[in-house]
Amino acid sequence: MDKDILLLIEADHLAVAELNARFAEMNSIDIAALFQDIPREKAARIFRILPKGIAAEVFAYIEPEEQQLIVEDLTETEVSDIINKLFIDDAVDVLEEMPADVVNRVLQKVNQEKRKLINQIFQYPEDSAGSIMTPEYVELRENQTVAEAFDHIRKIGINRETIYTSYVIRRDRFLAGIVSAKDLMLADRGQKIGDIMDSNFVFAHTTDDREAATALFKKYGLLSLPVVDNDKHMVGIITVDDVVEVMEEEATEDFEKMAALNPSDEPYLKTPILKLARNRILWLLVLMLSATLTGSIIAGYEDALALIPALVVFIPMLMDTGGNAGSQTSTLVIRGMAVGEIQPGDALRVLGREICIALLCSLGLGLINYGRIYLMYGRSSSLCITVTLSLVATIVIAKAIGCLLPLAAKKLRLDPALMAAPIITTLVDGTSLAVYFSIARGIFKL
Amino acid sequence: MDKDILLLIEADHLAVAELNARFAEMNSIDIAALFQDIPREKAARIFRILPKGIAAEVFAYIEPEEQQLIVEDLTETEVSDIINKLFIDDAVDVLEEMPADVVNRVLQKVNQEKRKLINQIFQYPEDSAGSIMTPEYVELRENQTVAEAFDHIRKIGINRETIYTSYVIRRDRFLAGIVSAKDLMLADRGQKIGDIMDSNFVFAHTTDDREAATALFKKYGLLSLPVVDNDKHMVGIITVDDVVEVMEEEATEDFEKMAALNPSDEPYLKTPILKLARNRILWLLVLMLSATLTGSIIAGYEDALALIPALVVFIPMLMDTGGNAGSQTSTLVIRGMAVGEIQPGDALRVLGREICIALLCSLGLGLINYGRIYLMYGRSSSLCITVTLSLVATIVIAKAIGCLLPLAAKKLRLDPALMAAPIITTLVDGTSLAVYFSIARGIFKL
Repeated sequence: MDKDILLLIEADHLAVAELNARFAEMNSIDIAALFQDIPREKAARIFRILPKGIAAEVFAYIEPEEQQLIVEDLTETEVSDIINKLFIDDAVDVLEEMPADVVNRVLQKVNQEKRKLINQIFQYPEDSAGSIMTPEYVELRENQTVAEAFDHIRKIGINRETIYTSYVIRRDRFLAGIVSAKDLMLADRGQKIGDIMDSNFVFAHTTDDREAATALFKKYGLLSLPVVDNDKHMVGIITVDDVVEVMEEEATEDFEKMAALNPSDEPYLKTPILKLARNRILWLLVLMLSATLTGSIIAGYEDALALIPALVVFIPMLMDTGGNAGSQTSTLVIRGMAVGEIQPGDALRVLGREICIALLCSLGLGLINYGRIYLMYGRSSSLCITVTLSLVATIVIAKAIGCLLPLAAKKLRLDPALMAAPIITTLVDGTSLAVYFSIARGIFKL
Repeated sequence: MDKDILLLIEADHLAVAELNARFAEMNSIDIAALFQDIPREKAARIFRILPKGIAAEVFAYIEPEEQQLIVEDLTETEVSDIINKLFIDDAVDVLEEMPADVVNRVLQKVNQEKRKLINQIFQYPEDSAGSIMTPEYVELRENQTVAEAFDHIRKIGINRETIYTSYVIRRDRFLAGIVSAKDLMLADRGQKIGDIMDSNFVFAHTTDDREAATALFKKYGLLSLPVVDNDKHMVGIITVDDVVEVMEEEATEDFEKMAALNPSDEPYLKTPILKLARNRILWLLVLMLSATLTGSIIAGYEDALALIPALVVFIPMLMDTGGNAGSQTSTLVIRGMAVGEIQPGDALRVLGREICIALLCSLGLGLINYGRIYLMYGRSSSLCITVTLSLVATIVIAKAIGCLLPLAAKKLRLDPALMAAPIITTLVDGTSLAVYFSIARGIFKL
C-alpha cells in the first residue's frame, strides 16, 4: 500500500483528492515515513495535501532533515501554524534545526503563551534534562477530589504519556506529590488528591545530565519523570518515548567515539561526504603520527633487525594480538561504566581480574604460538622463546592499559569512550615492540 | 540513609524490628539495590525481615545473581510464595536462572493457573517476542460500556503499564482492537467499547525476534505491545520497561561482538574469571593465527627488507592507520544497520561514499606524511613516494573492506557485528603490507 502511494505521488498529475482520502486512513507515523522517499521538490506540496487534522502530528514524526526541507518551502505563517499545534518538546526539536533569524520570525506568529514556553526550554544546555522536557503535563491540587481531577483531565486531555501521571502542585509551584492514572481509577470519587498522592517520588533537576535522567527511567521503570528547579518548583516532565531516543543516541555516540570518530547525530546516508571526512581525519592524523613513534622504536633497533631479519615477521602478530586484547578489555570496561556495572572505585579489582585473565589467555596463546614457530621455523629455540615471552608480556600490558585508561578517564571526569581501542592500540603497539626488541637483545645477546 | 541501613545490617546483633520499620518507609527499588552490598550469608535472613506486603516486589527488582543466592537459602515453600506473588514475566525471569529440578519442585507449590501460564512462556525461544511477554493484561469485550470497563479495571487492577491499554477480545480470543486508558477517560460512560476501540493497531507475533518487537516500540512510541499467534489470537503483551532492558542488552552485545568478545549477559564484576578468559581466548587465537599470515607476507619480501631496512619503520604506521580507517567505517555501517538507517540495498551507495571519503582523508594524511618523511629522513624521495602511495592505497582498501564486509554479512543473514574491527584489521593488514612491498619493489626496482 505504501508503494502504491509513492507511485501516485511520482505520477506527474497528482490526484489531490484521492491522496487526501488515502492519507486520512493511514497512521501518522507511516505517513511520516513516506517523506523519506518523496523527492524533495514535491515534499512541501504533498505535505499541504495532508488532512488538516493530522498535518502537525505527521510533521512531528518526519525525520529532522526532511522537516527542514519542507519548512524551507512553506510560508512562515504555515510554519507557525504547525508550531502552534505541536507539543512543546517536538516544537523545540524542529526549531533547533532552523537558522536563528527564521526561528525569530516564526515565533513572532506563534501564540504568546507557547512562545514563552518554547523560549524557556531553549535556555537549557544541550545535554541537560531541561532540554528534553516538555512543560505540558496535568496539574492537580491537594484539595481537589478524585472526581474533580477526572473532570480536569477530561477537559485538558493532552497526550498519552502526559496523562498517566498527574503532578500535585502547591500555590508557589512547589511539587508536593504525584498521582498515577491507576491511583485515580482505583480511588473513590470523593477522596482528596492530597490523601492519595505519592509524596515520595523520583525527580530530576533541570540542569542534570540527560543521561542521568535516562538512568532513573531504567532504574525505576518510569513512564514519565518530573523535572524541578533548585527549590523543587515544577518546570516540566520528561516522557519515556524521549528516553528511548536518548538511549539510542548515547549508545551510537559511544560506538563512534570508540572507533575514533567525531560523534555526529545525523544519519550516515544524509551526512555530506565532506563532513564525514572531517569527522574522521583528525583522529586518523593523531593516531598516524603516534604510530610513527612506534616506527621510531623499531628504527632504534635496526641493528638487531639487520642481524636477525626473522624478527620482523612477528611484528604484525604481536601488534594485532596486543590491539585485540586491549580493545576487548577497554570495551568491557567502558560499556560496564556506561550501564553502571563498574565504578571508578572498582579500579584495583578490575585490574586484578584483567591481569589474571591476561595470564590465562597468554598461557594458551603462548603455547600454541611456541609450537607453531617451532614447527614452521624450527631453526632457533631462542626465536621461539623471544616471541612467546613477548606475546605474554604484550597481552598483559594490553589488558592493563585497556582497563586503566578508561577508568582513569572517568576519574578525571573525561569521557571513558574517548580512551577506546585506537588510542590503546597505539600505546600497546609501542610498548610491546619495545619489550619485544629488549627481550630479543637479551636472549640473542646482541 | 542507605549507608545507615547497611551499618545496621553489618552489626552483629540485628535489630529486626527497627530494620522492618525502616524498610517499610523505603522504595522497593532502593531496598533491592541494598542487596548488592549485603554479605551473601546474611542476604536470606535480611530478606525475611522485609515487610510481607513488599517482599515479592523487592525480590523482582533484585539483580538475578543475588536473587539466586537468596533463593538457595530459602525453603521451597518460601520461594513458591514469592513466585505466586510475582507478575508472570518477572517469575519467568527468576525461574530461568534456577536448576531444572528446583524449578519443578517450586512450581509444584505454585497455584495451578499461574503454573500453566509460566509453563507457556517457557516454550518460546530465548530471543523471541514470546519470551519477554507477560500474559497479564486487561481484557475487554466489544459490547461492554465504558462504565463497565472502568468497573472491570478497578476490580482486577494489575500494574501500571498493563492497565493503560486494554485489549478487546472476541469469544475465540481473536484480538479485535485496543482501547487506551486515555480513550476510556475521555469517552462517555455509556459508549460501547466496540465503538471507541482502535482496530488499526500495531502488534507482534510470538515468534518474532525480540529486537523487531523493540523496534516497534521505538517507531510508534508505544507503552505496551500485544503479542498474538498466527491466527491473531491474543497471548500476551510486552511492556515498555522490558524494552528498555532489551535495548541495553542488545547494544552491549554489539559492543562485545565488535571488540572480538563472545557476548555474555552477566555483569563484568560478577562473571567468573575463567569464563571471562574463555569468552576472549577463542577470538584472540583466531586473530593471532590470521595475523601470522600477514607475517608470512613480510617473510616473502625479506630480500627487499634486507636491501632497504628503513621500510620496516613504516610498518606500524601503515598497519595502525589501515586498522583505524577500517574500523571507523565498519562501526558506522554496523551501527547504521542496527538502528535501521542503512539497508543492504544501499551497498553501492555506501561503497561510493566511503571511497570518496577515503580519497579525501588519504589526500590530507598523505601530504602530511610525505612532508614528515621528507623532513625526518630526507635521504630518498623514492621512500617518501613509496610510503605515501601505500598509505593512500591502505586507507582506500581499509574503508572499502570496512563497509563491504558488514553489508555482505547482513545479506547472508549473519550478524554484521561479527565482521567488526578485529577481522577487518587483520584483513587490511595483510592487503596493505602486500601493496606496500609491491610498490617498494616497483619504485626501488628491486
